[in-house]
Amino acid sequence: MSGSTGTTARGPYRTGIRRREQIVATAITVFGEYGFAGGSIRTIADRVGVSHATLLQHFGSKEGLLTAVLQEWDRRTVEASLTDVAGLDYFRRLPEVMTAHLNNRGLLELFTTIAAEASSPAHPAHAFIQRRYTDNLATLATHLQQAVDAGEVAPLTPAEIEIEVRLVTAVLDGIGLQWLLDSSTDVTASVETYINRTIAAWSSGHR
Amino acid sequence: MSGSTGTTARGPYRTGIRRREQIVATAITVFGEYGFAGGSIRTIADRVGVSHATLLQHFGSKEGLLTAVLQEWDRRTVEASLTDVAGLDYFRRLPEVMTAHLNNRGLLELFTTIAAEASSPAHPAHAFIQRRYTDNLATLATHLQQAVDAGEVAPLTPAEIEIEVRLVTAVLDGIGLQWLLDSSTDVTASVETYINRTIAAWSSGHR
Repeated sequence: MSGSTGTTARGPYRTGIRRREQIVATAITVFGEYGFAGGSIRTIADRVGVSHATLLQHFGSKEGLLTAVLQEWDRRTVEASLTDVAGLDYFRRLPEVMTAHLNNRGLLELFTTIAAEASSPAHPAHAFIQRRYTDNLATLATHLQQAVDAGEVAPLTPAEIEIEVRLVTAVLDGIGLQWLLDSSTDVTASVETYINRTIAAWSSGHR
Repeated sequence: MSGSTGTTARGPYRTGIRRREQIVATAITVFGEYGFAGGSIRTIADRVGVSHATLLQHFGSKEGLLTAVLQEWDRRTVEASLTDVAGLDYFRRLPEVMTAHLNNRGLLELFTTIAAEASSPAHPAHAFIQRRYTDNLATLATHLQQAVDAGEVAPLTPAEIEIEVRLVTAVLDGIGLQWLLDSSTDVTASVETYINRTIAAWSSGHR
């Protein structure tokens, strides 16, 4: 899907890659502002300063561009993910992870808007967003199970673990949305309050 | 903004009101599916079976239709609101209130999608959604302060109260979104777990 047709023409090849990155970055902003349904290819092309036809040459279709945007989102969040922490430490790091998202308002707005929009089964990102939630919930569940197995917290049934990881996810999503709507929202303190209280409840076995 | 030009012609007047209600109900569904930016007047008109021109006769513009949709949302949620409960009882009733929302997937999808989309300052519902969040957070804060004043829970500073009501709101929004994405989400049990644990923490003064 690169804009180049060969690797020998280094100049044009590089230009194609840069152009493609520019388009994806602009699409993140535009889809973040208007959603996927409301963000038009024409608006994105205009902002980048390329023609509608050039943009479609790079991505084939609006869905193709959305795929590239979601891949970019994946790439950036995987880089930022907590691959080196286990058990409760994973949860303890969440306030910091969430605070880091605030440096990238465009991506947070994109994800919040597309996730809401894609709750409709007909949306082209529906399967992507569903898989993203399933994967994320499974990762959180693995870490909470690790904490149980290590004796860091009192035992939890699988049903209880599912509720716990859904609540953590809800808090992160919901506080992110409130910050987008009102930047005075204290994201770090809110998430810390939630995580500290929850870890205390898990540890005491009073759920 | 009614479709009628007089009250003497009862037949046409009634037809106008019914038509208007039909358009608003369809707009709730379409904006819920595609967002406001992505939901077109033409789609709504086609589904209702009226012309584009007839629809605009009733609402003036797409923004006029959005206003009518948000007023309808307000009307339905005010009817369902907890005007008869004070202090902690208000929070204890939230699992039930949230469960009732599940009977109206269209409205939940509409609100979730528009709230995310309207986080962009340029969105026509931006001010409406901001005010809605401010009002809702203030209502929750009033009830939590009542609980403090009545000695139902340990004292909380205004900053602590703000964090608490933002977390409650985040949980309701976030669990609603997860249910839209995956209807196996146990909304009632999740919200109950959150509320019970939170009330226990407030009561013990261990926050």
